[in-house]
Parts: sequence; C-alpha cells; structure tokens
Amino acid sequence: MAITSTYTVKGMTCGHCVRSVEEEVGEVPGVTGVEVELETGRLTVHSEAPIAADRIEAAVKEAGYELVTG
Amino acid sequence: MAITSTYTVKGMTCGHCVRSVEEEVGEVPGVTGVEVELETGRLTVHSEAPIAADRIEAAVKEAGYELVTG
Repeated sequence: MAITSTYTVKGMTCGHCVRSVEEEVGEVPGVTGVEVELETGRLTVHSEAPIAADRIEAAVKEAGYELVTG
Repeated sequence: MAITSTYTVKGMTCGHCVRSVEEEVGEVPGVTGVEVELETGRLTVHSEAPIAADRIEAAVKEAGYELVTG
C-alpha cells in the first residue's frame, strides 16, 4: 500500500529549515519518503502503512516548526 | 593584540543561517571569536592579528551568503 499524506508547515524561511524538517520527518518509523516545499510550506509524506498525524506533528515540532491545523 | 572587525551579511533569514555563518567564519585561520546578529546582519570577528577581509568574505560565501560592501 502506497500512502501519500500532505501537511502544511509554517515558519520555514530557508533551505536549512527545509532540510531540518526533511530530516526529522524522515526519521519517523514507517516513513519511506519526504518532500518539503519552502514557498508553500507543503510537506508530503510517503509511507507503506498509515502513520498517525501526531507523529508527523511531533517530528515537525522537533525540527522547530509547527503544522498549520484545522 | 585584540582586534575586532565588523561586517554586514545579507540574506540570512533564520538561526540556521546564523549558525552556518558562525561556523564558516570560525574556521578562518586566526579567528578567535565570531558573533552574528540575525536582525541586522552584523558579523563581528575577533582575532589576535589582522585578517584579510577577503578571507572573511570567502567564508561568508562558503556559508551561502554575501557581505554588504561599499
């Protein structure tokens, strides 16, 4: 099963921020791929099984940013 | 001899940028201390002997930024 989930990250200002988010989210168990777009804040997460959104949110916070929710 | 030189860096947007500049400039031979202020772009370099400005400029470029000159 190939799952793609998208989130929006706020607060990223440069390529270093993008790499921080990519690294932290990439370490979440089950994540097989991550893409982050600086301009829009779009975070795309690939996995083979569903991953709880709060795991992704925690990884984003670990990197120093927040998800746009709601 | 304690020398303090100041420069202005443009293009830094976040703390990651600041750390990149601090690291690169800190590796320039003779540099004994570096301070970078994100809001103003001010880069302060401490050394015991004069350091050619182009060494500092090269380090800033290595980090991915530019000095404001003139």
